Amino acid sequence: MQRVYNFSPGPAVLPLSVLEEAQRDLLALPGLGVSVLEIGHRTKWFEKILATASANLRALLSIPDNYKIVFLQGGSRLQFSMVPMNLLHAPESSADYIVTGTWGQTAAQEAQRAGATSIAYTAKATNFDRLPSERDLKLNPEAAYVHFTSNETIQGVQFLEEPAVGKVPLVCDASSDFLCRPLPIERYGLLYACAQKNAGPAGVTIAVIRDDVLAQCTDEVPTMLSYRQYVEHDSLLNTPPVFAVYIVMLVTRWLADEVGGLARMRTLNEQKAKLLYDAIDSSEGFYKGHARPDCRSLMNVTYRLPNDDVETKFLAAAQDRGLHYLKGHRSVGGIRASIYNAMPLAGAEALAQFMDEFRKRA
Amino acid sequence: MQRVYNFSPGPAVLPLSVLEEAQRDLLALPGLGVSVLEIGHRTKWFEKILATASANLRALLSIPDNYKIVFLQGGSRLQFSMVPMNLLHAPESSADYIVTGTWGQTAAQEAQRAGATSIAYTAKATNFDRLPSERDLKLNPEAAYVHFTSNETIQGVQFLEEPAVGKVPLVCDASSDFLCRPLPIERYGLLYACAQKNAGPAGVTIAVIRDDVLAQCTDEVPTMLSYRQYVEHDSLLNTPPVFAVYIVMLVTRWLADEVGGLARMRTLNEQKAKLLYDAIDSSEGFYKGHARPDCRSLMNVTYRLPNDDVETKFLAAAQDRGLHYLKGHRSVGGIRASIYNAMPLAGAEALAQFMDEFRKRA
Repeated sequence: MQRVYNFSPGPAVLPLSVLEEAQRDLLALPGLGVSVLEIGHRTKWFEKILATASANLRALLSIPDNYKIVFLQGGSRLQFSMVPMNLLHAPESSADYIVTGTWGQTAAQEAQRAGATSIAYTAKATNFDRLPSERDLKLNPEAAYVHFTSNETIQGVQFLEEPAVGKVPLVCDASSDFLCRPLPIERYGLLYACAQKNAGPAGVTIAVIRDDVLAQCTDEVPTMLSYRQYVEHDSLLNTPPVFAVYIVMLVTRWLADEVGGLARMRTLNEQKAKLLYDAIDSSEGFYKGHARPDCRSLMNVTYRLPNDDVETKFLAAAQDRGLHYLKGHRSVGGIRASIYNAMPLAGAEALAQFMDEFRKRA
Repeated sequence: MQRVYNFSPGPAVLPLSVLEEAQRDLLALPGLGVSVLEIGHRTKWFEKILATASANLRALLSIPDNYKIVFLQGGSRLQFSMVPMNLLHAPESSADYIVTGTWGQTAAQEAQRAGATSIAYTAKATNFDRLPSERDLKLNPEAAYVHFTSNETIQGVQFLEEPAVGKVPLVCDASSDFLCRPLPIERYGLLYACAQKNAGPAGVTIAVIRDDVLAQCTDEVPTMLSYRQYVEHDSLLNTPPVFAVYIVMLVTRWLADEVGGLARMRTLNEQKAKLLYDAIDSSEGFYKGHARPDCRSLMNVTYRLPNDDVETKFLAAAQDRGLHYLKGHRSVGGIRASIYNAMPLAGAEALAQFMDEFRKRA
């Protein structure tokens, strides 16, 4: 059984030690005699898993007590609706959307179905290759919230500092860079992330919500779409995705115990990203980065090759070297190397080396 | 590693061969070198898994072409809202709810938040120990749909024949008896089931919907709550719960190949249930069944013991014999033995034998 380097944008690579522990116990949890796929969500075992996953997240991100952590289903795309359904209910209220890529655009479109929205910024005209400066943002100081996407998976642009939005609650789709670095969490009103990039497998979504934002949520929503209900029932409103939460617990434990925390994780992510961006920048124009250098993502490195033919050869030759799932999204073209937390440094090194070799051969 | 007999009401026991295959490939799928927890949902591999799971369900239940099968998230509880949000939108429309237990009651309450509903029947006065006869149902021939719960997990009452509702679309929450027997699927307009009883792990919900019912669905719902969107995008509107769908594929393959189909499954389920109901009926009143004999569930066998003290002893002694998770829900009390598809006959035999021995000792 040989594992390849998996550069998939998500579902994405997980830490090997996490997979090994999940595999070891898959037929029967020690001392319990049932699989994690079979165990009740009201058991002491699962209550502890859920509490540990939550405590791990709280410790990793230094989340204060006035924030609640909940585990949801439906992916970030359901959050695109839950956010406005919960927060955009007062008469004449409106929300601002900062659109720096495909996912921010989709979030804004979905929010329009639920209430009034305004586009505070969009980089669509340049195919989402950049981030706004502070003066680019057209913010409404009375907005119910400002929504942004901290990392755009498809385009590979990432906010490494939060946009300045004054006193309006900042809502963040952190799906593809959650846990990649420490965060100044007090700047966020609500942060959500599907797990399948940095936190676990597909099937669970994490939300971190500040008490005053929670207090703004309406109760006039379906029970399963109410943040307040999830908080009040400690994410056990109904059967949660037990296995996915268990993997989140293992991944967050790995981050704390094996990696050594999010500051260390950020350093490792910067090292990996630098290898690939250096390979682009030293290629004399053979590789052309999509994102502007000042807003390049630590998670998704996007670049094009001279033409489609060379690109096809690149993908085939990369795969022969055990470097998989590098094809970019059609809206950007070229290559996308996703180097999430669990991608080892050796994977980025192997890709950077291959990029140099391929260019010299081409 | 010793496995116990797991009588949990859900998440529940899974076939050992399914767990073994999932365990074998958990670090890397053969020929792919990535885990099923890491693989992209747009890969050929996952497209095939999804198509196979769907095809297996279609074959097992003889589902005709005018029904679509989709895979959702959020559990049955989100369906409690999705059904009325999609179907209860026309002015002055109303839906009928047949309430035979806790889940049907919860479904009706949640539906009231979305539209007008009427209780066509409730057995609440007798703590849900029975099913309605045809003349008990107060049905509105103009209703948008009639909703019922085919098996009530908490009370252990099960419809083994569909209620007669004329031409009104019949909507069924089949969460806890899905795939336990063949179904006359043409009597259903919409059937949904969370996976964690008979079909897989927690985290995926299956819906089967007839074309004319699909045509009735409004588009004025959030994208992630639209049955039509799921159908049009073949359940790939966003990242589905890949691992849970994979397990559903393995479970449905097990049902077809190892069990031999749903008629055979029903026979096996009847054998298991008979062992336990016989132990109740031959106990000279020591064990008192909750459900009336004519509507006893094949999936959840509910009964009480003479008093709480004896019950506590029963649970402890059962656990010593490897018979786990037998405690009943507080609203019914006593014992609940859930004997879903994957509970082997030997498990039911062991419990029946223990029941006899315990009674004679007591």
